[in-house]
Amino acid sequence: MPRDPQRPEFVRTLRVKNENRVGVLASVLTTLAQRGASVGDIRMVRSGSQHVTRDIDIVIDALDALDAVLADLRALPETEILEVRDEVLAAHAGGKLRMVAKAPIETHADLGRVYTPGVGEVCRRIFDDARAADLYTTIGNSVAIVSDGSAVLGLGNLGPAAAMPVVEGKAALLASLVGVHAIPIVLQSQQTELIVEAIAQISPTFGLVQLEDIASPRCFEIEPAVQARCDIAVFHDDQHGTAGVVLAALLSACRRAGMRLEDAAVGQIGLGAAGLAIARAIMAFSDRPVLGADRDQGALRRLQDSGGDAAETVAEVMARSDIVIATTGQAGLIPPAWVRPGQIIFALSNPRPEIDPADALAAGAAVAAGGRTVNNLLLYPGVCRGLLDVRAMTAPPEAFRAASEALVRVTPPGQLLPDALDRSVHRAVSRAVARAAIDAGVARRDLDPDYFEEGD
Amino acid sequence: MPRDPQRPEFVRTLRVKNENRVGVLASVLTTLAQRGASVGDIRMVRSGSQHVTRDIDIVIDALDALDAVLADLRALPETEILEVRDEVLAAHAGGKLRMVAKAPIETHADLGRVYTPGVGEVCRRIFDDARAADLYTTIGNSVAIVSDGSAVLGLGNLGPAAAMPVVEGKAALLASLVGVHAIPIVLQSQQTELIVEAIAQISPTFGLVQLEDIASPRCFEIEPAVQARCDIAVFHDDQHGTAGVVLAALLSACRRAGMRLEDAAVGQIGLGAAGLAIARAIMAFSDRPVLGADRDQGALRRLQDSGGDAAETVAEVMARSDIVIATTGQAGLIPPAWVRPGQIIFALSNPRPEIDPADALAAGAAVAAGGRTVNNLLLYPGVCRGLLDVRAMTAPPEAFRAASEALVRVTPPGQLLPDALDRSVHRAVSRAVARAAIDAGVARRDLDPDYFEEGD
Repeated sequence: MPRDPQRPEFVRTLRVKNENRVGVLASVLTTLAQRGASVGDIRMVRSGSQHVTRDIDIVIDALDALDAVLADLRALPETEILEVRDEVLAAHAGGKLRMVAKAPIETHADLGRVYTPGVGEVCRRIFDDARAADLYTTIGNSVAIVSDGSAVLGLGNLGPAAAMPVVEGKAALLASLVGVHAIPIVLQSQQTELIVEAIAQISPTFGLVQLEDIASPRCFEIEPAVQARCDIAVFHDDQHGTAGVVLAALLSACRRAGMRLEDAAVGQIGLGAAGLAIARAIMAFSDRPVLGADRDQGALRRLQDSGGDAAETVAEVMARSDIVIATTGQAGLIPPAWVRPGQIIFALSNPRPEIDPADALAAGAAVAAGGRTVNNLLLYPGVCRGLLDVRAMTAPPEAFRAASEALVRVTPPGQLLPDALDRSVHRAVSRAVARAAIDAGVARRDLDPDYFEEGD
Repeated sequence: MPRDPQRPEFVRTLRVKNENRVGVLASVLTTLAQRGASVGDIRMVRSGSQHVTRDIDIVIDALDALDAVLADLRALPETEILEVRDEVLAAHAGGKLRMVAKAPIETHADLGRVYTPGVGEVCRRIFDDARAADLYTTIGNSVAIVSDGSAVLGLGNLGPAAAMPVVEGKAALLASLVGVHAIPIVLQSQQTELIVEAIAQISPTFGLVQLEDIASPRCFEIEPAVQARCDIAVFHDDQHGTAGVVLAALLSACRRAGMRLEDAAVGQIGLGAAGLAIARAIMAFSDRPVLGADRDQGALRRLQDSGGDAAETVAEVMARSDIVIATTGQAGLIPPAWVRPGQIIFALSNPRPEIDPADALAAGAAVAAGGRTVNNLLLYPGVCRGLLDVRAMTAPPEAFRAASEALVRVTPPGQLLPDALDRSVHRAVSRAVARAAIDAGVARRDLDPDYFEEGD
């Protein structure tokens, strides 16, 4: 049974009316900052000579902190709070997806085409030649996004229904960013064998299986076991998607710090699903062992089995590494005193990192980033698109490495990563992934040369 | 492995240019009829003083028959065939469904609402109160339409991929007719235990499971076994959906023939998935045994276990019944000489019935209908809508009986059944099903009185 989930963050929109005077917005933002509320979009609603009304999106740790913020804002003399809106719940009302018929079904002629008697010939063609399913069904463009709800975001084991908003969100992003037909599926059981069997059974419906929010260490077994039972590509996004984005950000950080990843001593603190996958991706890239720390001996053993070295303590990793990545979920685990000058530090736990990037930079780090920087939405849409486009039989490591390198290529100067909402980024990733899958010999079909032409 | 599938029918659109003169279209249609091509829509494309061009939709048994038709039409002096189009394949290109994001995801504020950090609060709310999943996910409005591909239409065991066009078509109809979010799922295995386990595993994703195109006798075991493993309603449409439509058509036919179904001797020829379900539905309605015939002893035993009587032969059923329903797939099984005056005869096999309805009427039947009359699309959309609306825990027989009676109520005078594309028909069915589910005590939620108000 799910237990001990972490608290989530809360997103709210405040409609605030101020006197229209320089400095008032700054005092509102200062008040928000003092209560730990981070600010998203600020949208002007109305601006008059006397007053100005704005919608301010905020993210806050707890609902009682929200109450405190509101009390403080109300205490400001120039400020009135007109409304506190919950646009997140509104955006989730009824779920975030809709399955629609591609063509209208209004007449009996329509019906005869999409259903009987017309459909019989289509069924028979697919029976005669399985490749016809690519042409006449959604199968070739479909991804199952499957979760057992055992590791939902950073919140813990919430069970299947509570995992649904996450997998629906990922499916909505696939539809929106790369036009993939994605079906969220959540499972009754958290037992490895039952999960593997269920996914294998439903796999003929899809062109790809993306595993999502499945707890470590079960996820390490489930992924290859499902792949062994399916003739379509299978990957666990929390491992390879996250690792691919981190690898890309690291390559950008190395460029900025004048370091070469191949020559750097890399330490990984926290060897869960993401942590171990990051260590493995870096070792595959650099052909050097990564030094890892974890409280769990099994996790350390898995790192060693993958060619890594086990550290005794977090301090040892900090002392021996040029680059440190932390994925522990433990806020403030790394004291600034442990930071060595010139280090690259990625403290990736959300919402509170192992060390605040600003503190790491103040302590001498060359580059420091938190979890919000490393957006795991950057990789999986292009990976899905590319693997589907070549009807890949597996999701090879080469495809994820190619995806990381594509991300680095399209990252604007001065940034670690590109913008996840820029559609051209996802097209660049899908081209690289399709090419890598073809080169790795796992593609079931080739693509026209114009697929690989640069451009939007 | 799938083997020996039946041939499907073929739907084509002919663009025919004639001299614009009375009687030419009739000669075209006569030519089509002579080759066994049935005609659907005829659409005027262009009409001049000399010539008229029309698109004629036809359905034909075989591609060589199509060639023969075209040769005959080309031999007509006034007629030119401009084009033979396959609009069925065009309608299936890329599949018939599209999964879309309900709201645009263009800005980082959008992203923060539908994905992290906003989504975390929604997950946590569902973890705290499972009923919140109804509000904030697609689960409560979702149907899994699941097939193992073992009995695809009348075509036979075509396997999972070839079943996909059918389940996609049914999903497209659910979206179009009643706004249900339907997900087609086809399975790797045709083993009962594996099918049951797989569907149970994915069931937390859905509000309802509709089984589809699963062969008899396995379907009789699978349906209750899946229901026992899920807390949502489960039904096999080829059984209960078809039986419900047949029951409605029978009630209309009885009204026309001045017969009472409760008092009539009913015979069922063919006791597969549909046949046994029809017999059971009629016995539940009339509380009298149905006399059944089938070549398979197991099928006869199942009928007897349900309270029916086994006949030795088809002729015996014809001789002893006031009403005969045939669902055997055997064209021409019933010679007109066996028809007794005043009988109601439903010969439901597609595309060729056990007896041509015209021949049955000529032989004295009071009412006769073929498979095309009894459209199984009439019931399941309203059933799904109604069961989802009350979050039904099972799909009780009362709901299907109520659906049949609703169909009878909305059938226009002189017809056996209403039009499947009339949305108000599906609303009438859903209201009746929701009410029946509430009355049967399987509803998880009540509905506002205005749900049950008549009208569109």
